[in-house]
Amino acid sequence: MRAAAERVRDHVLRTPLLPLEIGGVRLWAKPECLQTGGSFKLRGAANRLLQLSPEQRSRGVVAFSSGNHAQGVAIAARRLGIAATIVMPADAPAVKRSATLAAGARIVDYDRGSESREEIGARLARDSGAALVPSFDDVDIIEGQGSAGVEIGEQLQDVVGATPDKVLVCCGGGGLSAGIALALPEAEIVTVEPQGWDDMARSIDAGRPVPVPDDAPPTRCDALQTKLVSPLTLGALRDHGARGVSVREDETAAAMAWAARHLRLVVEPGGAVALAAALTGKAGPLSERSVVVLSGGNVDPVVYADILKGHSGTV
Amino acid sequence: MRAAAERVRDHVLRTPLLPLEIGGVRLWAKPECLQTGGSFKLRGAANRLLQLSPEQRSRGVVAFSSGNHAQGVAIAARRLGIAATIVMPADAPAVKRSATLAAGARIVDYDRGSESREEIGARLARDSGAALVPSFDDVDIIEGQGSAGVEIGEQLQDVVGATPDKVLVCCGGGGLSAGIALALPEAEIVTVEPQGWDDMARSIDAGRPVPVPDDAPPTRCDALQTKLVSPLTLGALRDHGARGVSVREDETAAAMAWAARHLRLVVEPGGAVALAAALTGKAGPLSERSVVVLSGGNVDPVVYADILKGHSGTV
Repeated sequence: MRAAAERVRDHVLRTPLLPLEIGGVRLWAKPECLQTGGSFKLRGAANRLLQLSPEQRSRGVVAFSSGNHAQGVAIAARRLGIAATIVMPADAPAVKRSATLAAGARIVDYDRGSESREEIGARLARDSGAALVPSFDDVDIIEGQGSAGVEIGEQLQDVVGATPDKVLVCCGGGGLSAGIALALPEAEIVTVEPQGWDDMARSIDAGRPVPVPDDAPPTRCDALQTKLVSPLTLGALRDHGARGVSVREDETAAAMAWAARHLRLVVEPGGAVALAAALTGKAGPLSERSVVVLSGGNVDPVVYADILKGHSGTV
Repeated sequence: MRAAAERVRDHVLRTPLLPLEIGGVRLWAKPECLQTGGSFKLRGAANRLLQLSPEQRSRGVVAFSSGNHAQGVAIAARRLGIAATIVMPADAPAVKRSATLAAGARIVDYDRGSESREEIGARLARDSGAALVPSFDDVDIIEGQGSAGVEIGEQLQDVVGATPDKVLVCCGGGGLSAGIALALPEAEIVTVEPQGWDDMARSIDAGRPVPVPDDAPPTRCDALQTKLVSPLTLGALRDHGARGVSVREDETAAAMAWAARHLRLVVEPGGAVALAAALTGKAGPLSERSVVVLSGGNVDPVVYADILKGHSGTV
């Protein structure tokens, strides 16, 4: 874990720890929306790509992603001179597609409903000899994301002279949550998911990966639409004693408006669920040793503007 | 200058230096929109209030402000246990009024068109014995704002191992610009103002304070609607060899949309003019030693949403 944090240190932005106040309690935000590429995903991608051999690098990398992992891989690959191919759902937010292209990656589209991105990715990797870069089911990826947790530990020590007692983390496949759990063994970890997509919470309870049901409600949290967590991320979170909570779409939207107004940060829906859990009290008591991770900020401007307008009177 | 930066260090947020890329050039942003209170104004207010005697503190403070200085004074005063009264235009953005009230200050309204805030403020100070806290025409205020420049110097040394060659600063009365000029004697300082409100640029050229004409066009940059700069700020900037440029309202709006999309930062109109000058090339060549100050992020959500929608296709 420490080795991964050292490895990526010069390749990622050390995002600040920002104070916020909820119900009279001062706590902290870790705004990974300020990270290069607009989400924490560069951390894991950098940690994985930095460990490829020169020969592996020459054959390129393949990843599948709805957007944030795509940008993380594309940016890390460009910096290391590696060709990147990203398998992306055709309905991914335009802001994420164009940023991935801008970072120099090739995009291969697939249909979320009828095609398997895993199969397309595996075929591309087989045909070209490229290395697959998983979005969460990989020790290097998990440890790379955990560098955010290492920073949280160091930064909280600086500002309050103590270790974190609780960290609220937005959770899709669980790579960030598991990495932070490994980095901060003494903190309570609360994974936060959209209602109906809280498969990590249910998997923690069940002790095995439980898929999202096919009739899950629509969600604006495109970054958290993972259908099944992995034994790796689930195992790390269960070993740690993590627990999971879920938030409604309107609570997430209100958290985005709150972040704009009170933190001056643009947070995407999937990046705002942990803040929503803090604002609604769903994550339990908070303290000056509590940290809320804002995991990403890539949201289409028109969608974002509509959400701000809809919730401007409430925050 | 160094003494002021030391004095306020534990009272303000050390905002990060964030990378950005314009036309293939990587440069840096200093996001004071992330500062406590949503603008740099806490820096000067803290530096001023920390130097009041216990007896002065007991009589309270008075300030006049369209909003950001109000919040800076209110927050600094609350933390030091000082009563604050703020003289505020009746048409100040609601988001700034409510944040000032939330920080525990008393607000006295005045009409921008028919009343003099200076006279109201002076009368309140005289009647109550409270200390007036000017928004820019004061050495302590200027030096406090300059702590942002001290941080820029330290942070740029950390990331590129060099001193800044150019700093673009949003300019109203010139407190922030003058403070940064004093803190960074070797950097070129470019003050940026809204078109028609570029009295600092014209005052630098004329060698004396030149007021904004009465027929100046409307601007959304409420934070930069200063009618006349002060000899103090003008003198510091002229001594430094600063120059001034101006940007159009649509350029400012596009810069706000650009900041939301590429930096995931909420920047208010008056806080985005320096970025607009960078994006339009009006501030001249940029380099990895150039820094753009984003001076504030307090914007009414509905106004902000409309601006994002209007410019979503252009950034």
